[in-house]
Amino acid sequence: MKAVITGWGHTPFGKLEASFEEMIHSVAREALADAGITGADVDAVWLGNFNAGMVPDGFAASMILGADEGLRFKPATRLENACASGSAALYAAMDAIASGRINVALVIGAEKMTAVDGAAVTRALGAASYQKEEAGLSFPEIFANFANAYAEKWGDPTEAMAHIAAKNHAAAVHNPLAQLRKPLELDFCRYVSEKNPIIAAPLKKTDCSLVSDGAAALVLADEETALTMRRAVGFRGTAHVQDFLPVSKRDILRFEGATRAWQQALAQAGVTLDDLSFVETHDCFTIAELLEYEAMGLTKEGDGARAIKEGWTQKDGKLPVNVSGGLKAKGHPIGATGVSMHVLSAMQLVGEAPEGMQLKDARLGGIFNMGGSAVANYVSVLERIK
Amino acid sequence: MKAVITGWGHTPFGKLEASFEEMIHSVAREALADAGITGADVDAVWLGNFNAGMVPDGFAASMILGADEGLRFKPATRLENACASGSAALYAAMDAIASGRINVALVIGAEKMTAVDGAAVTRALGAASYQKEEAGLSFPEIFANFANAYAEKWGDPTEAMAHIAAKNHAAAVHNPLAQLRKPLELDFCRYVSEKNPIIAAPLKKTDCSLVSDGAAALVLADEETALTMRRAVGFRGTAHVQDFLPVSKRDILRFEGATRAWQQALAQAGVTLDDLSFVETHDCFTIAELLEYEAMGLTKEGDGARAIKEGWTQKDGKLPVNVSGGLKAKGHPIGATGVSMHVLSAMQLVGEAPEGMQLKDARLGGIFNMGGSAVANYVSVLERIK
Repeated sequence: MKAVITGWGHTPFGKLEASFEEMIHSVAREALADAGITGADVDAVWLGNFNAGMVPDGFAASMILGADEGLRFKPATRLENACASGSAALYAAMDAIASGRINVALVIGAEKMTAVDGAAVTRALGAASYQKEEAGLSFPEIFANFANAYAEKWGDPTEAMAHIAAKNHAAAVHNPLAQLRKPLELDFCRYVSEKNPIIAAPLKKTDCSLVSDGAAALVLADEETALTMRRAVGFRGTAHVQDFLPVSKRDILRFEGATRAWQQALAQAGVTLDDLSFVETHDCFTIAELLEYEAMGLTKEGDGARAIKEGWTQKDGKLPVNVSGGLKAKGHPIGATGVSMHVLSAMQLVGEAPEGMQLKDARLGGIFNMGGSAVANYVSVLERIK
Repeated sequence: MKAVITGWGHTPFGKLEASFEEMIHSVAREALADAGITGADVDAVWLGNFNAGMVPDGFAASMILGADEGLRFKPATRLENACASGSAALYAAMDAIASGRINVALVIGAEKMTAVDGAAVTRALGAASYQKEEAGLSFPEIFANFANAYAEKWGDPTEAMAHIAAKNHAAAVHNPLAQLRKPLELDFCRYVSEKNPIIAAPLKKTDCSLVSDGAAALVLADEETALTMRRAVGFRGTAHVQDFLPVSKRDILRFEGATRAWQQALAQAGVTLDDLSFVETHDCFTIAELLEYEAMGLTKEGDGARAIKEGWTQKDGKLPVNVSGGLKAKGHPIGATGVSMHVLSAMQLVGEAPEGMQLKDARLGGIFNMGGSAVANYVSVLERIK
């Protein structure tokens, strides 16, 4: 029996007062209420969380049980796949439902990043790269390497990257859950300035996603159960492709794992990219969104700039990308991101996205969530089934 | 289709030269060879690993892919459930097979604990308790509290604990994979001495499991595929029960989650404890093994000492417990332990356990792996099916 999304919860993203545990409890309760059930109706729970030292809670799955007395003694498990930890949790829950072992799952993605200082965050995120060869390199530096290699082979991508940043910042204005709801003009994103310094050349501050706290939750049920509930969003296609960890063992000019994941998920869904109403994609850096245009097959290799410069991925374009504001402006609480992408896409498909963010006639949504630099690659194709 | 064990690998446990990644590669290759397959035959891989700062590798699932070129692009996921991280990985893989999504899985549990100093290990393990109320308490202190509460309600358990320590040390002599293969006399375990100091009263050094490096691996296949392979060990019953994280919300006198997990797994298997040929149980501390006798239903509450003092759980007793040496003497590389328990039990059931450790006519084996102080509770009942 296939797993289906029947309810959700989502904190605002940003620097939050709430503790890691409080965020988890808050979205758990919100999602249960949204699905019209209580903890006693849930068969098992999953937590997506990266951590790596950002909070002292190294064994956090059970925290979910504290949200509702009815959850006591239910199986609880934590999944980690770097920035795709949320999708990892979701996909594990889908397997459990598909196996027939359980009927109703609660999946939470959460990350508290602002409890430690910036250096500690950089160190924690750095733990997601291959230490033997990449220790000491920050993630902005790793993605800067991608941008520089791209420039050498295909020409300077920074103008396209500025357009992507401006697009995503403009979109977040309409997302009340987003961390940065201020439109940033194209020229601001384009030029180095005091307020937009170089982080790792050629990446400027506007090319990098944010340090965020946040949590998101999904209630899943088997299809039969889901169809008795208020609304249901199904997975028409899913794929998880993992690539080698060392950058040295991969082609720095493309996200090969992402390409394969998109191909597999679209084939399983029996659709092409043209059939999608929108895509939420993993823009941890603007160069990532550019490479992802190519990985998803929107343009051929080296031609990703066309998709943004010709307006294809704008909200009114042929394939709106990151109308939520993306990681760039919505925020990127590591473990929450994959779950958040599914929540916001489900909202679009049932017509419950915030005003200004809601797309007309959204029928099929694509999601790409990745861990590391296209090491963990998850693609979901969602559609409303009730 | 049910998941079945068809092959395995296991490093010796102890202070090893091998890095975290090298251990993972070594057991991956060993298990593939043991199952008579290569990486290309594997559909997906899972890693059980706690980490919490003991190695800098915060995103380790992909490391498995490095063991065999044929594993590239296969889904890889890390699971964490403290000291039950290995079982968490195994159970996720079983769901994926049972769902029909995949046929062959490679599951690895691994931990490198000796790359950092003792204080860092204590800090890392401390991350597995509820920080808001238990921060600063070490795990020996938490289990010492269990022992002290037990003494107050049921009488001093330390004599029984010494018997358990001596039993498990004696057993490890026959396990070439064990970390400590020296028999420790009952009197040595019984009394405080220079070589057996108090760690957290009343726990002495001989009451505590070891700091270990190690990895273990399992190849799983769906039953139909497994039956075409050389040998197959099936799961007759499985259960995962998770309890609240804060000790303050649980009964310190018993492992309630463990009791429920045993009841569920035995019911699913359609057997009673009397039907089991042996049990591998989670003796992170000797008081834990004592409480687990009661949780599994071997004795009534407060009466666990009988099981050890009357020899029931000795190798020649009515229910041999931890003939591998247990965490106590085999070693306890956190993420590896759950997988190791399944490997050693499978060996027993197919008659491939090391000489001196092999039981006669082992038909059904019970396994209890826990995370925290009975927070994560996994019980498997294994039987040979080919």
